Amino acid sequence: MDLSEFELIGRIAGKAGGAGRFETGIGDDAAVIRTRGRIVTSVDTAVSGVHFDPDRPAAESARKAIASAVSDIAAMGLGGTPVELLVALGAPRATPDAYLEGLADGVVEAAAEFGAELAGGDVVASPVVFLSVTAIAHVEDEVPVIGRSGARPGDVVALTGPVGGAAAGLVLLGGLEVPDLSDLTRELLITCQVRPEPALAAAPVLARAGAGAMIDISDGLSADLGHIASSSGVSIRLDSSAIPLVAGVREVAAALDQDPLSLAAGGEDYVLGLTMPQDRFAEADSALIEATGFELLAVGSVLDPGETGAAVTLVDERGNSVPAPGGHDHFREPDGPSR
Amino acid sequence: MDLSEFELIGRIAGKAGGAGRFETGIGDDAAVIRTRGRIVTSVDTAVSGVHFDPDRPAAESARKAIASAVSDIAAMGLGGTPVELLVALGAPRATPDAYLEGLADGVVEAAAEFGAELAGGDVVASPVVFLSVTAIAHVEDEVPVIGRSGARPGDVVALTGPVGGAAAGLVLLGGLEVPDLSDLTRELLITCQVRPEPALAAAPVLARAGAGAMIDISDGLSADLGHIASSSGVSIRLDSSAIPLVAGVREVAAALDQDPLSLAAGGEDYVLGLTMPQDRFAEADSALIEATGFELLAVGSVLDPGETGAAVTLVDERGNSVPAPGGHDHFREPDGPSR
Repeated sequence: MDLSEFELIGRIAGKAGGAGRFETGIGDDAAVIRTRGRIVTSVDTAVSGVHFDPDRPAAESARKAIASAVSDIAAMGLGGTPVELLVALGAPRATPDAYLEGLADGVVEAAAEFGAELAGGDVVASPVVFLSVTAIAHVEDEVPVIGRSGARPGDVVALTGPVGGAAAGLVLLGGLEVPDLSDLTRELLITCQVRPEPALAAAPVLARAGAGAMIDISDGLSADLGHIASSSGVSIRLDSSAIPLVAGVREVAAALDQDPLSLAAGGEDYVLGLTMPQDRFAEADSALIEATGFELLAVGSVLDPGETGAAVTLVDERGNSVPAPGGHDHFREPDGPSR
Repeated sequence: MDLSEFELIGRIAGKAGGAGRFETGIGDDAAVIRTRGRIVTSVDTAVSGVHFDPDRPAAESARKAIASAVSDIAAMGLGGTPVELLVALGAPRATPDAYLEGLADGVVEAAAEFGAELAGGDVVASPVVFLSVTAIAHVEDEVPVIGRSGARPGDVVALTGPVGGAAAGLVLLGGLEVPDLSDLTRELLITCQVRPEPALAAAPVLARAGAGAMIDISDGLSADLGHIASSSGVSIRLDSSAIPLVAGVREVAAALDQDPLSLAAGGEDYVLGLTMPQDRFAEADSALIEATGFELLAVGSVLDPGETGAAVTLVDERGNSVPAPGGHDHFREPDGPSR
């Protein structure tokens, strides 16, 4: 690679917007940014060969890393607020310039796509390519911020979209042939995997509509709802027949000889999971449809912690408990081509 | 490794302080933090085998990663302000639990040492251990923040301490024998490499005393002062005989058959480089001695950009220009055991 660290940072800095709230932008030791009273901040990391495929386009992989970090802001019930990103990039010295430029372009384009500004960067030599992305959102005091601990017994559990698409897309990228799948459905599933959409439009609508707890489905449906259950001191019952699956997920699961819900446990779907009092649901659904065109999908209910043994229980149409496929643990799962 | 991602985050979260400014702390999708009007933020990354030696204690390596990130806050003229840290940790699945626990302990201990709070974490599988650390400082409007662009012709260029120690320590860790070196001096130099001290005490004193531009010497003396020169649109003349070297650096350089100043170009010294009007120097020096016990060390002067061909020129006692050893570029330097 011929690009130096400083050239690469300059390439990103030159394309960064430099919003009015910056006193000092990218390119100094640190950025100086005016705030609105509170910041909401999170870090998310993507490693080549683990979270993205080194053979996919660099800009796509960088966008995915940014999308995942931005999704943590949406998961707090936020969207449309000022957001800054700090991006640490590791890459081997032998990385081709074109790949590095693709990563830089992907970072800049994704920041623009999600309405975020680049506030900092760090480029280091590393045996493997990785991007570690910190997102900082600025939030006025009166804006509701929704954590994981506000689920209450009696609440509805809902999703902002179908799940399982990212895991199904990963399997398809791995080479699985599924004859029943149309080319369009196949592409849709792969898009779920490589081009996730943070729910920035839905999140603030649902926060204002009374969501008590919210999370993005990044680790897997049961695992993430389990985080809400444990943070809130409740248990959650999911109705297996109500869980919405992306078109084609059933066919991919059949080709794998697996329960379709095992693909919903794959994570990276980046829809929102949330809880809300029953009497707020209809109005929230209307508000979501008006804002995004999509329905709010009820998938279960919040129970007292004592009512079931586990944080999350999956029940079938007859109310019988069925085993919930496990969630995603970045350390424990078997090695795979792209996770 | 038996520790799961969630257990490792929990281990860090359980030890995190949770200062009063947190509405939501570590363990949710994002932290929610009350601010003081402005944030100052930066990211810094350390990769095993590049920035720290995998055979050194894990806690020491984690502390070094945190120190380097915190030093970027000091480089803005800040110290004693509230600071949060977000730490992304990558590690191979086969990493021993004891090493991971050491990293987690090092993160928690270093945060406490530097008066910072942990606001977020991310743990991912990676072929190599790395820590990417984002630091966020909260700064009231009336507190001066010192960037790189405020150097003016006629200013003094100064350092808060001697340089070259970290590079000399790295060479000693690499196995170089230097018979002239006492055991104590040897240990001091190695300490410079493995246990850097961010200049959090000196930085705000010098900011208040009139520093115009400031940077931490992380990439190497000439490279970092070159950043000030280019950001400020000036050139800098360094008096080679005035550059303070850590005790033992000359002996290590002699054993390497190198100019001692080449070790000052090695970076990672984490003292501050700054510029200041001549007439503020004496008072700033007194204030620094009172606050830290250390003198402010004048090493050169700021010139008009036209006066020399290069951003940074090194001159000897007779005013003759001498070649300045190059700075540190994380991508361009040859592969080494620990950078």
